[in-house]
Amino acid sequence: MEIDYKDIKVIGFDADDTLWVNETYFRDAESEFAQLLGAYETINTVDQLLFKKEIENLQLYGYGVKGFVLSMIESAIEISNGAISIHAVEKILNIGKQMINKPVEVLDGVEDVLKILSEKYKLILATKGDLLDQERKIEQSGLAKYFKYIEVLSDKKEANYSQLLQHLDVSPEQFLMVGNSLRSDILPLVNIKANAIHIPFHTTWMHEYVNEADVKGKSYKTVRNIKELTELL
Amino acid sequence: MEIDYKDIKVIGFDADDTLWVNETYFRDAESEFAQLLGAYETINTVDQLLFKKEIENLQLYGYGVKGFVLSMIESAIEISNGAISIHAVEKILNIGKQMINKPVEVLDGVEDVLKILSEKYKLILATKGDLLDQERKIEQSGLAKYFKYIEVLSDKKEANYSQLLQHLDVSPEQFLMVGNSLRSDILPLVNIKANAIHIPFHTTWMHEYVNEADVKGKSYKTVRNIKELTELL
Repeated sequence: MEIDYKDIKVIGFDADDTLWVNETYFRDAESEFAQLLGAYETINTVDQLLFKKEIENLQLYGYGVKGFVLSMIESAIEISNGAISIHAVEKILNIGKQMINKPVEVLDGVEDVLKILSEKYKLILATKGDLLDQERKIEQSGLAKYFKYIEVLSDKKEANYSQLLQHLDVSPEQFLMVGNSLRSDILPLVNIKANAIHIPFHTTWMHEYVNEADVKGKSYKTVRNIKELTELL
Repeated sequence: MEIDYKDIKVIGFDADDTLWVNETYFRDAESEFAQLLGAYETINTVDQLLFKKEIENLQLYGYGVKGFVLSMIESAIEISNGAISIHAVEKILNIGKQMINKPVEVLDGVEDVLKILSEKYKLILATKGDLLDQERKIEQSGLAKYFKYIEVLSDKKEANYSQLLQHLDVSPEQFLMVGNSLRSDILPLVNIKANAIHIPFHTTWMHEYVNEADVKGKSYKTVRNIKELTELL
C-alpha cells in the first residue's frame, strides 16, 4: 500500500527493540529461570507458567524488569510448591540486577537515521517500562540529543497515544510512529488515524503478538531495517 | 520570612503525603517485615539494614513499591544468612501487593484547596515512584481534573525540576512547589530560585530527612495544613 508522508511533522520512536536490544535479554533471563526450575517442570511448562504470571500481575506491576523479577519469584514458589531454595530466589534477584546493568546495545543504523530525520522532523521517543531503567538506557545510548521530547508511558494503548498527541499539540495525520510491536506501536496509531511504520525485531514477547485478522486491512507500512526510513521520509 | 507570591503562575504539587497518605503504608510494611525477621535480629537492626539496602539499590530500582519489595526480599536473605523460609518470601510479595492495592486516602482539605487554586493558577502534579502505581493513585483520588499536567519523575533533584520548568515554559520565579519533603519538594526549588511551601506530614522516610544546617537561611515557607494555602495565594 502506498502511503503519503507529506503531512508528517512529528515522528515518534519506540525504544526497546526498535533503537536498542531488549527482548533478547528477557529471553536469556527466562532461559536461566527455566534452568533453576528444571527439577520441577519442563522448560516449556515453566515458560508458559511464567508468562501467565506476568500477565496476571501486569495490572499491578506494569511493564519492566522489576515487575518481571517479582513475577519470576512468585512463579518459582508456585511451580515448586514452595520447595524452591532461598539460593534460587537470590539467583533470580541477581538475574534482574544483571538485566538492569546490561550495557545498552544500539541497533545498526539507528544513529545515522535519527540524525538525518531530526533535521527535517521533530522526533520524540515514546517507550514503556520502568521509568528509571528507561532513562538510564536513553542516557547510555547517547541518542537523547535527537529527541525533542521523551515520554515513558505506563502502557501504549489508543488512549495513551491520544493523550500524548494532545500534549504535543499535533494532529494524528501529522504524527508517525515507528516501532517493532504491532500491538503497541502500530495498531493503536492506525486506530486513531495516525501513521505507523513497523520494523520487526527478530524476537517478540508473546504478549505483543497480534492475530493476522487484527492487522488485515490496516493501513501501515513494514520495513525490514530502520535505514529504509530515510528513503521513505 | 514574608514571601511575595504575586508572580506565581504555575503551582506544582507533590502527591505522596501531600495530597494522600503514603508513608504510613511503608511504615506498616516495615513493621510486618521486622516481625518476619524477628528470629534473627531486633526490630531496630532489621529497620536499619532494610534502609541501607534500599539506599544501596536506589540507583538500580528507583523509588516506589516494586523496588521496595525487591529490597525487602534481598534483605531478608542477608539478615537470615539464607535461613529465611520460602513462606516468608511469599509473605513479602503479598505485603507489596497489598500496598499497591491500598485504596487512596486523600488528605483532609486537599480537594477544596485544589478546586479554589485551580481557578486562579495552572496546577501541575509532580511525583516520583512507580509510573503505573502513581497513575492508579491519581485516577482513584479523583483529583486529576484539577491538574493541567501530571509528571512522574524518576527523581526530584534540581536538574529534574529545571527540565520540568523548561518543558512547562515557565520561569523559576513564576513557579511554586508545594510538598511534604524538604529534600525532594523544597530545597531543590529554592536552589534553582523557584518558590516552595513546605507542609510537613507526620511521618517522613529517613531518606527524605535533611540536616538543619541545609535549610538554614533558605527562603521557603512552612504551613501546618494545606488549607492555609488559600490564605497565602
